[in-house]
Amino acid sequence: MDLHELVNSPGQWLCGDGPESGIVISTRIRLARNIAGYPFLKRMTGDQRVDLQARVRKAVDESAALKSIACLNLETASHMDRQFLVERHLISRELAAGEGSRAVVFSRSEAESIMVNEEDHLRMQVLRSGLQLLPAWQQASLLDDQLEPRLDFAYSSRLGFLTACPTNVGTGLRASVMMHLPALVITRQIEKVFQAIGRMRLAVRGLYGEGTQASGDFYQISNQVTLGKTEDEILETLTLTIPRIIDYERKARETLARESEVFLEDRIWRALGILRHARQISSEETMALLSAVRMGVNVGRIRGLDVATVNHLFIGSQPGHLQIRHGRELSQADRDAARADFIRQTLQAAPLN
Amino acid sequence: MDLHELVNSPGQWLCGDGPESGIVISTRIRLARNIAGYPFLKRMTGDQRVDLQARVRKAVDESAALKSIACLNLETASHMDRQFLVERHLISRELAAGEGSRAVVFSRSEAESIMVNEEDHLRMQVLRSGLQLLPAWQQASLLDDQLEPRLDFAYSSRLGFLTACPTNVGTGLRASVMMHLPALVITRQIEKVFQAIGRMRLAVRGLYGEGTQASGDFYQISNQVTLGKTEDEILETLTLTIPRIIDYERKARETLARESEVFLEDRIWRALGILRHARQISSEETMALLSAVRMGVNVGRIRGLDVATVNHLFIGSQPGHLQIRHGRELSQADRDAARADFIRQTLQAAPLN
Repeated sequence: MDLHELVNSPGQWLCGDGPESGIVISTRIRLARNIAGYPFLKRMTGDQRVDLQARVRKAVDESAALKSIACLNLETASHMDRQFLVERHLISRELAAGEGSRAVVFSRSEAESIMVNEEDHLRMQVLRSGLQLLPAWQQASLLDDQLEPRLDFAYSSRLGFLTACPTNVGTGLRASVMMHLPALVITRQIEKVFQAIGRMRLAVRGLYGEGTQASGDFYQISNQVTLGKTEDEILETLTLTIPRIIDYERKARETLARESEVFLEDRIWRALGILRHARQISSEETMALLSAVRMGVNVGRIRGLDVATVNHLFIGSQPGHLQIRHGRELSQADRDAARADFIRQTLQAAPLN
Repeated sequence: MDLHELVNSPGQWLCGDGPESGIVISTRIRLARNIAGYPFLKRMTGDQRVDLQARVRKAVDESAALKSIACLNLETASHMDRQFLVERHLISRELAAGEGSRAVVFSRSEAESIMVNEEDHLRMQVLRSGLQLLPAWQQASLLDDQLEPRLDFAYSSRLGFLTACPTNVGTGLRASVMMHLPALVITRQIEKVFQAIGRMRLAVRGLYGEGTQASGDFYQISNQVTLGKTEDEILETLTLTIPRIIDYERKARETLARESEVFLEDRIWRALGILRHARQISSEETMALLSAVRMGVNVGRIRGLDVATVNHLFIGSQPGHLQIRHGRELSQADRDAARADFIRQTLQAAPLN
């Protein structure tokens, strides 16, 4: 498929219409599965990988688990296309950087995707806008149920689903919630929140998963434990914890508005001012400024700009998106200029107050 | 007089209509004079100061040297008013901070002013927009001629005009040109230019004279020597040197536009973006940003904004101006907010492209 079709709008999960969208970007459920009769990825031959990929594709087609799908062979995809898919959270950085036969299958809404031959044979993912742990889990579970009879997942009655890495054994489930916590960062309460999250045995990661830096005040909060707990128990920990973090962030925003009104307004409007005027801008600065603007929209300080547009700016200003839009690889200087142009043009279309 | 009448527009010399206004803000001629029969200021009694002040006032009135004048007794003026007059370059920081009977007389256009009982009995000043060394000198000389018969200036046939400080003896003349040299600063050529200026025995000072830091890329270039040279010789050195500096700055701007177009545009537009959006801003940041905007207007990158408005922003955003406008002393936080408001409102009125 031509990725150009996707570049001009964010996936459904970034439309900003889900519950708690002011603070929760998205909810993600990921299931790790392997197919019985094949070795784990590291020991597979090239032929086995190709064969497995074909089986998955066939199972997806037959089950109608994903509607209106796109399938991309990452072995032949360009560096630019792979980067683009990472930015859209359709594939992991590991799958993008990997070698050999590997693929991604995803629905056009980008709400469901299946990575094939990543660390495990299958990594199924469901993404939803805002805080939707249960609906996302139900969708992932349905996908699992539809594929399972056709693929014969490796399962041990003692351990549960078998995975390449022991940290995923059992449920193979990782539930994660992407949160936007600028006020907790500004008021320096974020570390305290992280400590509390750690005590719940939840993990905090950056925007693009394990080992990535938090940027733009975005944090992924997810379960660490997959073994010895049921799926419901894993989800429950998050279901109890996330609303408390939302509450902390909301209170921090209220405190800022009450006690540091000019500071808050200044931070928000300067960020918008720079984004509306800059002629070159780095990815890092863009994230920081968009974070302030997103908060400004959500606390009602900036009117005429919706969360969907801000989300579109976040994703659309990333290197892969810029390059897909320009149809070629760009140097860093060219990306910085292209990014500033994209942001300026997108904001010019918004009827800002 | 009520300084409120002045606060909403800059003086004539800041209208930006003089020759070379893109690079030269203004030309200033200052003559130091003392009146025979009185000791120098440091040895004067309070009564002598009051008496001398009255004599100067009378001489000014009778000679009609200044039309439509305002006279301010600085001993009774508020701190706020004195700060305002310093910002408008009508009085020196020394006169503002001094003690005892002292005054300033100035024309409503603010083009001519006389400080009384500063370091010398009289400091006459003529300010002109852009590069106007000869016209400014002629005007100052006329003022001198008109007052001299009425005030009997202390003069030695051997030394020339006698002044409190030996550095001013002789002509008592200081000619200075205020230049805006952002491109020489950006391209790091400014030190080289200063060295050349030093070799011409010219001095470089900041925006508010001796001992002040250069801010907003503004530099006052003036003669150091007052003795052993005629007025014409002093002016000639500047008349020869300033156009060369203008030329350097212009070439640096062209180089930037040619070799660093995106950088230049980004710097200019970001500065404008922040000024249009900030809710609190320091004096220092304002100067730096307005410097970029002023260059942007002068190199034709920002349209719909004229130099007079930019100059008005420079002077109107200073603490004394903000406080006069608000009718009271403001805390630093309040000034930073008031400054941002003033700038935003002034820029909103400009039909920017």
